[in-house]
Amino acid sequence: MPREEQVCEIITVGNELLTGRTLNTNSQWLAERITQIGGFVRRCVVVRDNVIEIAEILKEALRRNPNFIIVAGGLGPTYDDLTLDGVAKGFKRRLVVNKRALQMLRTKYRQMWKKGVIEKYELTEARIKMARLPSGAIPLLNPVGTAPGVLLNLDSCILACLPGVPSEMKGIFEESLKQVIAERTGRVFSYSRTLNVEGIVESSIAPLLEKIVGRFPDVYIKSHPQGIEGGISRIRIEFTGRSRTKGRVKVRVSKAAQELAKVIRKRGGSVELV
Amino acid sequence: MPREEQVCEIITVGNELLTGRTLNTNSQWLAERITQIGGFVRRCVVVRDNVIEIAEILKEALRRNPNFIIVAGGLGPTYDDLTLDGVAKGFKRRLVVNKRALQMLRTKYRQMWKKGVIEKYELTEARIKMARLPSGAIPLLNPVGTAPGVLLNLDSCILACLPGVPSEMKGIFEESLKQVIAERTGRVFSYSRTLNVEGIVESSIAPLLEKIVGRFPDVYIKSHPQGIEGGISRIRIEFTGRSRTKGRVKVRVSKAAQELAKVIRKRGGSVELV
Repeated sequence: MPREEQVCEIITVGNELLTGRTLNTNSQWLAERITQIGGFVRRCVVVRDNVIEIAEILKEALRRNPNFIIVAGGLGPTYDDLTLDGVAKGFKRRLVVNKRALQMLRTKYRQMWKKGVIEKYELTEARIKMARLPSGAIPLLNPVGTAPGVLLNLDSCILACLPGVPSEMKGIFEESLKQVIAERTGRVFSYSRTLNVEGIVESSIAPLLEKIVGRFPDVYIKSHPQGIEGGISRIRIEFTGRSRTKGRVKVRVSKAAQELAKVIRKRGGSVELV
Repeated sequence: MPREEQVCEIITVGNELLTGRTLNTNSQWLAERITQIGGFVRRCVVVRDNVIEIAEILKEALRRNPNFIIVAGGLGPTYDDLTLDGVAKGFKRRLVVNKRALQMLRTKYRQMWKKGVIEKYELTEARIKMARLPSGAIPLLNPVGTAPGVLLNLDSCILACLPGVPSEMKGIFEESLKQVIAERTGRVFSYSRTLNVEGIVESSIAPLLEKIVGRFPDVYIKSHPQGIEGGISRIRIEFTGRSRTKGRVKVRVSKAAQELAKVIRKRGGSVELV
């Protein structure tokens, strides 16, 4: 594990996530990418499109002192895109038209006009809204859609706001945010192996697992019961390690998996290590 | 909308959700079901398998005074199944072996033994762990797996803990928890319509949308841009209403959708109402 963890909290905004109408793939994608580049995701929260709720959740998150707060959703032009209003309220900043953000929007709408997507080129109030950023914020170029991402330095914490449209969120993350996080985490290697187990139930594995966990505190081991079918219990056990040195993490993860495989076999279970 | 909203908060527990290894379908399923039976999901949170984190998040949730806190994950027999430890710590309850829960486990393991899933019938420490509930809690029968669900009355709030295995979570919810929530919400009708729009960008719809929203405050309207392909912008707009009377909600939702469709058509967009 890196010496100084870069702790991240992910906030996704949208009523459709709280009614279950939309599956929160944004939160998963961000969590996976942040983990891949060495960050540590401590918490994920979903809130609805409401200024007070957004402001509250941002203040709560900041009080826990993370290195990064990543917000997805609520940056668009419509009445219920309220993320930046929430940021402004939560951190007592004014919303001001950002020149660079406005220039980004100008370029986008001019392109759309040339391509015939819109009938005439104009910067309406709804469009300028996307350039109204909390004072001190930096816009991040949206390579896919219109609304720029927003980066705001809150002393020891970096707040990043991304659009909720998945392709736009991913585009801005890959183009701008990834580097900002990776610079802080440095190089971290992650390694995983999976043990597929049959013929033994999870409660019988539990005490064996606990012993291995005690011997390999640097390896995270998680069992996922897959149910019992035809009288046979199936469990998937995942082993994950992270380290600054590639060789070490591979050895430790593999060794932990092999040792558990051995004791499970002894107890009559069949195992497959992948 | 019902006069007294039954506010629910959903907490899902598991490191695999925070590394992005697992997509959080549990949270979506619970949100959708709770909404369907008339509840209002205000917040969803994901935390890792850590007693202190779980205890903290539970206390935070309770401070916001919801009617229900629903937790999924961390009820199993292994070392990192820590939800009940978190409940005990957060709400200062002792963990005690619950007689009814123990009886449920006895029945389960006896069945497994008879079916040859386990070699011998015994209540090991790992199995008894699943019957150690916070004092005052009620076990909920798990119709699919072993770990019982847990219901705990916290004065004005009901806390329910469900296993993280999706089939078990759903089984307990449908068998026991659904009724508890539905009894409080009473009968609520929900109605939705979708408007598929082409040839107009979201920022052009924004001011039209805002007017309709002002005229139909009881209808929730959300636009989802689907991107621009071949020079044509596509947007899906969803209209949702909830009411105690079926007729009223249908009329209001349909009327809001039709009125927006009309003004979008006037502006040159093509619409399809489904």
